[in-house]
Amino acid sequence: MRPFFCPLEPAIHPSVDAMESRCVGWLDRVRLHRDERQRARLVGTNSAEFYCRFAPSGDEASLEVAAHWVYWGFAFDDARCGRGELSADPSEFLTMAGLMQRALEAPWDPVCENDRFVTALQDIGRDFHRCATPVQVRRFTDAHRTWLFGVAWQLANRAHGRMPSLGEYTAMRLGSAGGPPTLAMLEIANGEEVPAAEMDSLVVRGLTEMAILVASWDNDLQSYAKEADEANTDQNLVNVLKAAHDWDTEQAVDEAYVLRDQVMSHFLQLRECRTRRPASRALHRYLEGLGHAIRGNIDWALGAPRYDDIDGIPAQSGPRHPLVGCTDQPTTHRAGPLPIPAIAWWWGLA
Amino acid sequence: MRPFFCPLEPAIHPSVDAMESRCVGWLDRVRLHRDERQRARLVGTNSAEFYCRFAPSGDEASLEVAAHWVYWGFAFDDARCGRGELSADPSEFLTMAGLMQRALEAPWDPVCENDRFVTALQDIGRDFHRCATPVQVRRFTDAHRTWLFGVAWQLANRAHGRMPSLGEYTAMRLGSAGGPPTLAMLEIANGEEVPAAEMDSLVVRGLTEMAILVASWDNDLQSYAKEADEANTDQNLVNVLKAAHDWDTEQAVDEAYVLRDQVMSHFLQLRECRTRRPASRALHRYLEGLGHAIRGNIDWALGAPRYDDIDGIPAQSGPRHPLVGCTDQPTTHRAGPLPIPAIAWWWGLA
Repeated sequence: MRPFFCPLEPAIHPSVDAMESRCVGWLDRVRLHRDERQRARLVGTNSAEFYCRFAPSGDEASLEVAAHWVYWGFAFDDARCGRGELSADPSEFLTMAGLMQRALEAPWDPVCENDRFVTALQDIGRDFHRCATPVQVRRFTDAHRTWLFGVAWQLANRAHGRMPSLGEYTAMRLGSAGGPPTLAMLEIANGEEVPAAEMDSLVVRGLTEMAILVASWDNDLQSYAKEADEANTDQNLVNVLKAAHDWDTEQAVDEAYVLRDQVMSHFLQLRECRTRRPASRALHRYLEGLGHAIRGNIDWALGAPRYDDIDGIPAQSGPRHPLVGCTDQPTTHRAGPLPIPAIAWWWGLA
Repeated sequence: MRPFFCPLEPAIHPSVDAMESRCVGWLDRVRLHRDERQRARLVGTNSAEFYCRFAPSGDEASLEVAAHWVYWGFAFDDARCGRGELSADPSEFLTMAGLMQRALEAPWDPVCENDRFVTALQDIGRDFHRCATPVQVRRFTDAHRTWLFGVAWQLANRAHGRMPSLGEYTAMRLGSAGGPPTLAMLEIANGEEVPAAEMDSLVVRGLTEMAILVASWDNDLQSYAKEADEANTDQNLVNVLKAAHDWDTEQAVDEAYVLRDQVMSHFLQLRECRTRRPASRALHRYLEGLGHAIRGNIDWALGAPRYDDIDGIPAQSGPRHPLVGCTDQPTTHRAGPLPIPAIAWWWGLA
């Protein structure tokens, strides 16, 4: 595993421990797990920590609801999108996911009885209506549909034993990795609504997508490093490149880092550019949040220590500054648009 | 076929004829058809007329782009969602629809070569970027994804030979009938952006969904009347009710009209209520547009005459006021929330 190019400071919300215990209480109340093993696995996702890294100065109550959704998302992914019983058949997934989405959109009445995922998601949906604005809620529910649509697409490829091209994989991965709902919660956790004209501008749309893609590819590279063996045939950036170019793993991993760093560099430049222009405070915090998301995703996945000594709290273990997973040096100085039509427009933004 | 309860005036844009000829020129340029028969069928959808009824005082240039999308939507539905080669397998549909959606989101580069639907949709996407605001474009693309997700869900049911329950069917139909993108174009055609706080408020979300559902159920009732025979096993409001209650066609049709009229009555009351409260001009026009959509959808489907004598233009045929398809009398005075959890919240709005 090589370090990721990510010249951004690590950050975490100071209330992470309290948040985590409250979230475990919530988990025991909504019971997404069926047994102790599943419960341990779910608690062990450290979802509260994950989102505390995304919104290090967030409002505690809203941040906690966001953390609930992250736990929910991991449990759902595990039970219904991956190895679970519904994952082999995209049709089964679609009928279930369609109702799930509607349960979130209309969380006040039991859209579907006796499904613990529906009940818990509706609990989260009602909480969002309490702590977020109608615009933020709508953004989150739209993003949630984008994710479920992406997962269905991924399952469809799997059902046909189909390895997508790089272009298709990139378009699909912008949704399927859960990035859209995860990032839609940034402004909710921050407690500040980004004005629509800013949020829907091409530049901010592009920056949001870049953050999603970098984090998704980072997950791909991390899970490839963990699970790599010749039998790994998952839809994954490395396997996509191997299949497209008939490369061996080393060549594909090299190219994956180059592609990822090109997007990361462009993200940093464009964000800097946008930050220098007039913007609401909510947008400033949102753009900062996109950086926290990329960095936080890496640190969380590496099990990086949570604390440094800024607040006089000693590090739990390991080095005080968890830089092991990150570097300030990009793998490449290759510039210009990636040869992927679905995202080439990012390089035309200014 | 009984008349629909719809106490709203018919309306149509005065430039409908010119619009139609320009649209036929566009169709011949983008060539969604493969032969003369398909071309005639596509021209015969009268999509320009359809949208001229939705936005009778719309800006001509924007209205024309909206009409292009309606033609595109009918052609796409015909070729890829219905009887077409991709419709039997939800997986094939998903991989195609995923790329189609991305092509719309990123219309500047050829996301997929040699697909006439992609090329035409990207043409429409670029036109929207010219004539609509970034917020309106984002609303349309989100609505477009909602539609494709709904279609995939419907195909998934079909693949399993599954007749959904009324609750599932209602949730699915809110997306699958194409209502979301069609109504997202109202404010584009009107040339006025509805402020986000108004558009995303629960009341306006609810009213938008009610208009979508009434129009979708009207389509169901109209196509059932056209195609009704005992072999009709499509997912359709009438068949859903027959299957749920073990009813015969007449009982199911009766109940379908009652359900539809309950939603229609609530729509009219709530819209009246909302219109009396302070609102931007853009919202006023949007709420009017929802009414034009319900009425226009009926008139268009019945092939109602286009003109009355308001502008001194004689009616093409038939009665001057095309009231044959509509009545001011509801089928029912039954009130209160429908027993459908996915939409029961509409009756809590004020």
